[in-house]
Amino acid sequence: MHALVSEALAGSAQAVARLISLVEAGDPDGAVVLRELHPRTGRAYVIGVTGPPGAGKSTLVDASTGVLRKQGRTVAVVAVDPTSPFTGGALLGDRIRMQDHATDPGVFIRSMATRGSLGGLAPATADAVRILDATGYECIFIETVGTGQAEVDVVSVADTVAIVLVPGMGDTVQTMKAGIMEIGEVFVVNKADQGDPDRTAAEIRMMLQLNPHPTGWTVPVVKTVATSGQGIEEALAAIDAHHRYLSADGSLERRRKARRREEILRIVEARTRMRARELAHRSGRLEQLADRVHAGEIDPYAAAEELLKQA
Amino acid sequence: MHALVSEALAGSAQAVARLISLVEAGDPDGAVVLRELHPRTGRAYVIGVTGPPGAGKSTLVDASTGVLRKQGRTVAVVAVDPTSPFTGGALLGDRIRMQDHATDPGVFIRSMATRGSLGGLAPATADAVRILDATGYECIFIETVGTGQAEVDVVSVADTVAIVLVPGMGDTVQTMKAGIMEIGEVFVVNKADQGDPDRTAAEIRMMLQLNPHPTGWTVPVVKTVATSGQGIEEALAAIDAHHRYLSADGSLERRRKARRREEILRIVEARTRMRARELAHRSGRLEQLADRVHAGEIDPYAAAEELLKQA
Repeated sequence: MHALVSEALAGSAQAVARLISLVEAGDPDGAVVLRELHPRTGRAYVIGVTGPPGAGKSTLVDASTGVLRKQGRTVAVVAVDPTSPFTGGALLGDRIRMQDHATDPGVFIRSMATRGSLGGLAPATADAVRILDATGYECIFIETVGTGQAEVDVVSVADTVAIVLVPGMGDTVQTMKAGIMEIGEVFVVNKADQGDPDRTAAEIRMMLQLNPHPTGWTVPVVKTVATSGQGIEEALAAIDAHHRYLSADGSLERRRKARRREEILRIVEARTRMRARELAHRSGRLEQLADRVHAGEIDPYAAAEELLKQA
Repeated sequence: MHALVSEALAGSAQAVARLISLVEAGDPDGAVVLRELHPRTGRAYVIGVTGPPGAGKSTLVDASTGVLRKQGRTVAVVAVDPTSPFTGGALLGDRIRMQDHATDPGVFIRSMATRGSLGGLAPATADAVRILDATGYECIFIETVGTGQAEVDVVSVADTVAIVLVPGMGDTVQTMKAGIMEIGEVFVVNKADQGDPDRTAAEIRMMLQLNPHPTGWTVPVVKTVATSGQGIEEALAAIDAHHRYLSADGSLERRRKARRREEILRIVEARTRMRARELAHRSGRLEQLADRVHAGEIDPYAAAEELLKQA
């Protein structure tokens, strides 16, 4: 067994952190450790938390962590930070709040950047979740600003997806893409001490009536004030209710199996992509084809076909 | 020759728009029309315009279009709109301003969404640029909010990249990633009638001294007030100067050839990815492997290796 795996299983949070870094960096040992940890996975419950910037997702996860800890459950948080080239790292500041739990061995917090993960963000996040699951964290939050397809993919790793909004986002609710609304299994109207939270909740419910959840699950809408802890237990109860709903008819198992297929496919894609690049460069054909494209003799699609024929 | 290609070459803007839609949607005719148009490409000058939201990029491109039209040059604008699942289409509102040029046959404006383009945003944008180039637009602007890798990839299609900032973004300048700073060949401090534009310009110059442009080009910093047209001619002159600089020593040709390589590779990657997905589903093996992964017998990486062996 890999040394870091033994240490992580023995309870070292530092070893867990190093395992995630290993996998995130695309280290060849990553596949080895995942293989060793794999039989221990499948026990954690994974909660995706998404919503627009400023909705208070971090505070909500922070407050939920506090409640879960009081219930005796261990918690891991994977925060996906979109690293804008213009505002790099700004969101990491949010994480400082989570320092409340920094000395609690039952809480693990990790930021992952949307840039720089080899093979894509989704596989890296799924791997991190697998490592945290195998090393005994019972509740795993994946927190992400819902700003792109990558984030939606990440959230799809979760068993329950919570979407966090704030009062006065009526316009947001109306312009929200069907794609993101469909993935919401619990809606949270946070900052319910501001504006008109009931109106926002009513707007969400109306939208849910028009687009009911495909599984037949009645999506709850919960009001919270994460900064004071108000409504947090209700939000967690809504997530637990969804967990029970999924478990009752075997659909949790089916969902997880479907996700395995997606996981395998994403790894296959990442490998094929790397392989295509290597092949193109090694054969030396790429250079010749680029010259011919540049000269206007053939177009890039024809050049790509040429390369693929030889692959 | 494809009917739309003849119409587009005869000057129909509607045909140009339909050609772009064809390629964007991944229509099989897309490869055909690109092949037909390919020998006519290579004449346009492509300018990437990027920067944080609210910097006034649209207004700047709009004002620049006005100046270029007075110089007798035709202009196309490809605006890449990041479609956040939470704020869908909001940025499209910006485009309304460009209606000034709506009746001018020498101006073509097109929005492209970051979601929904088959095979990735970068190939779709590169294809749109190719179509606009072949159909006679002399200056092509690619305008994008610089918020992610996709946008940086898109801007890399350009001959000259302009980065637009506004006064008081000192913090932004400091936190800007090296990656985005390196691609800037012209810096524009827009909204120079507000705050302290000289200070922002000085901060940019200081940063450029620490990280000089890899080609030896001295990156100019220009102050503009796009709403009043102030400084626009100077900004365009800076872009022209960069064009001349690149042309003088043959590096424009080298850059364009290097981009051809990247273009071919991106197409190869997109095709390989689709092929891998098809193969996995067709063979029926994926389902069996997902079951074994779910049962904890093998891990997803081992399953992916299995599939790749058969590919």
